Amino acid sequence: MQKPTLPKGTRDFGPEQMRKRLFIFDTIRQIFQQFGFQPIETPSMENLSTLTGKYGDEGDQLLFKILNSGDFAAGITELDLASGSKKLTPKIAEKGLRYDLTVPFARYVVMNRNSLTLPFKRYQMQPVWRADRPQKGRYREFYQCDADVVGTDSLLCEAEIVLMIHEAFRNLAIQNFTLKVNNRKILAGIAEVIGAPGQEGTLSVAIDKLDKIGKEKVLDELRERGFSEETLVSLEPLFLFGSATPYQTLDQLKNWLSASDTARQGITELEEMLLLVDQYGLSDSRVEIDPTLARGLSYYTGAIFEVKANGVSIGSVSGGGRYDNLTGAFGMPGLSGVGISFGVDRIYDVMEELNLFPADTGQGTHVLIVPFDKEARSVALPLLNQLRTAAVAAEMYPDLSKVKKMLDYANAKNIPFVVLIGSEEVQTGILSLKNMVTGEQFKVTTEELMDRLR
Amino acid sequence: MQKPTLPKGTRDFGPEQMRKRLFIFDTIRQIFQQFGFQPIETPSMENLSTLTGKYGDEGDQLLFKILNSGDFAAGITELDLASGSKKLTPKIAEKGLRYDLTVPFARYVVMNRNSLTLPFKRYQMQPVWRADRPQKGRYREFYQCDADVVGTDSLLCEAEIVLMIHEAFRNLAIQNFTLKVNNRKILAGIAEVIGAPGQEGTLSVAIDKLDKIGKEKVLDELRERGFSEETLVSLEPLFLFGSATPYQTLDQLKNWLSASDTARQGITELEEMLLLVDQYGLSDSRVEIDPTLARGLSYYTGAIFEVKANGVSIGSVSGGGRYDNLTGAFGMPGLSGVGISFGVDRIYDVMEELNLFPADTGQGTHVLIVPFDKEARSVALPLLNQLRTAAVAAEMYPDLSKVKKMLDYANAKNIPFVVLIGSEEVQTGILSLKNMVTGEQFKVTTEELMDRLR
Repeated sequence: MQKPTLPKGTRDFGPEQMRKRLFIFDTIRQIFQQFGFQPIETPSMENLSTLTGKYGDEGDQLLFKILNSGDFAAGITELDLASGSKKLTPKIAEKGLRYDLTVPFARYVVMNRNSLTLPFKRYQMQPVWRADRPQKGRYREFYQCDADVVGTDSLLCEAEIVLMIHEAFRNLAIQNFTLKVNNRKILAGIAEVIGAPGQEGTLSVAIDKLDKIGKEKVLDELRERGFSEETLVSLEPLFLFGSATPYQTLDQLKNWLSASDTARQGITELEEMLLLVDQYGLSDSRVEIDPTLARGLSYYTGAIFEVKANGVSIGSVSGGGRYDNLTGAFGMPGLSGVGISFGVDRIYDVMEELNLFPADTGQGTHVLIVPFDKEARSVALPLLNQLRTAAVAAEMYPDLSKVKKMLDYANAKNIPFVVLIGSEEVQTGILSLKNMVTGEQFKVTTEELMDRLR
Repeated sequence: MQKPTLPKGTRDFGPEQMRKRLFIFDTIRQIFQQFGFQPIETPSMENLSTLTGKYGDEGDQLLFKILNSGDFAAGITELDLASGSKKLTPKIAEKGLRYDLTVPFARYVVMNRNSLTLPFKRYQMQPVWRADRPQKGRYREFYQCDADVVGTDSLLCEAEIVLMIHEAFRNLAIQNFTLKVNNRKILAGIAEVIGAPGQEGTLSVAIDKLDKIGKEKVLDELRERGFSEETLVSLEPLFLFGSATPYQTLDQLKNWLSASDTARQGITELEEMLLLVDQYGLSDSRVEIDPTLARGLSYYTGAIFEVKANGVSIGSVSGGGRYDNLTGAFGMPGLSGVGISFGVDRIYDVMEELNLFPADTGQGTHVLIVPFDKEARSVALPLLNQLRTAAVAAEMYPDLSKVKKMLDYANAKNIPFVVLIGSEEVQTGILSLKNMVTGEQFKVTTEELMDRLR
């Protein structure tokens, strides 16, 4: 007999984990909706023609491909086989699993361009799949929760993302977080000002590692990549930004980067965003302007966001930014948008580590009814009905077992109350209510029971 | 430039559809939880060794297989290629997509046998994939919503399923439905009594078509499959069951099938189930005992359930039953369970056809704030904050556009209220509130606005 296993990099979620995950999903969904984002869902499978070429060569490798149904091998020649896996793939697989939510969203917008009213605010909470080498905290199937606005370049959208992030993490009880913000145009301006115009990509890849490898190694990497000593000297101010207020940091940047129109544009955008956030009345802002923040840059063209929870060594829990060409690859150029993605798995880890889940998140059933014999069921069943009618999650132990076994069941399911019904209870109508947390047991009438449990 | 398309048999769900689908999911989830079922989720991918051989030959064909990552073709010889797709598949694909929620659940139970407390009540709401030929109402990706109890043969579980079905369809506003119930043992007893013992499988396949092809053709099919004229004459009573009460139908069955111990056992089980439902106090029961109900029978061993919505020509919207050997294929025999599955896509179709979705299901944002110029934003933004703090879903139009365009946006998003803010409103502090349904417009203070929208 086979012993079943799970595919590498995939997970089951049991009841306790699921309840906590649902708490995160529900919280984020509610905030997305409160901010006017509308739900969509796209299929798990997309045509490979939709997915390929959107995530770079490495991304293409990491796509899960689905074998064509039916006699897929029929048209394959020995020559095809000899040409290797890469060339063989398109002949036997025309579909792949979603790699992120952004490309399917772009595809959706293009296919529905005639019926969508712009600006279009959508959210999407679905799993994605990547054939990455599994390791701690990295899975082959994981959820993304994305909210994007497309069809407007209004900075109000950036401000709304800042607000939404604050609302989300506060509702998740993650009070202590930092929202780092930067702007692609500031990075471009830095490259300009130090004398390496257009090199912000290379520059960003190196300074992105500042936290991990330190300043000296960042400079070494830049040297290797052809940055002159002169440019590196000019880069010095970048390493001097401390924990100033956002407006102070923007002032410092204005001084340093005054020679670059692009940088000034980026700084103005961030200023306007901060002003809108202030007008809204955000209290206790966690915004920090970080001119080293890059986040893989490749498609961000304006604001860049990243959220880290403080006090835990877990990477970023949320990130996003503005892009100017979401749908270009599908023949619909010039559609600007800005979005944010919440990483449910990492948020889960943060909340677990900091013990932030509400105490009752793990609870499902509120009360278990335990009849000692068949006769007791005639009392137990109407009570069960009454409890559920009052919206109390209730169940009845289905078998006639030893009391200890039934109480163990309640404990295993984290059920806080048990109602015991034996012959005495049937005769008197007085019920025994046991508090499973304190161990106390009370005699109560049905009415008293309902009052306590409602 | 490529024009993107969707893979055959898959669908996007836009905002309106999604809201309605979420209404169904939330309603069913809430009822599952109220009845003490706990959520689990399993990965979309399973090892093909877990899935293969569980759904019959046809099912194996309909599994979506995932091409192995990396250089999958490396070990493939020309001989492998020549041996055909079926033999080639296991060499290049070791994983497949979930085909239903039952087999992954069985795998989960076996893998967690040491930590699970039995009886285990779980629910699971996830998509499944089948490489079926797409046609109206049949998709290659669709959701299943299953609830099962395993580890007990108590008939209370059957009664709870009957109750849960009533609760679910009533909360979905599908008042007019029929819950057909049968028992595998009654079908076995019928086969016995007519002189074709053990033939209940063949018998069921034929009588399952009674609704569609009528009695004469059912008899023809049975003749073809080797049933003698004598057995068919004995089968006559089966076609005489009318719209009696459940207890009357069980009495008729008792008379007809008195010679079969198995049948009597099945009848007793259904009687006990009905008794428990009565003790609970279910009002307006929609239960109908239907001795012709079979539902693919293959793994049901006791009760069989099927729900049809009346007044629409949509197939069954829910079905399930008891099985005695969920986990046998994974080396854990003798685990009895009973479960029910809700078909979200069909429930959606029923509710759409009968216009049963609550009027506000399609609504997301409750109020759109429309500032006419930049200055108006200084009034609009604190108001937005105030509305959201009061849990009103609110958004602000991000661009400074023509009023008509902004009102069109509200209409397209089904937003019932718009707050217009121009220079007059900024000066006086009195706001203009427009009801988008009636077209009426009012002058209100912020306080009055909050009162109306809260």
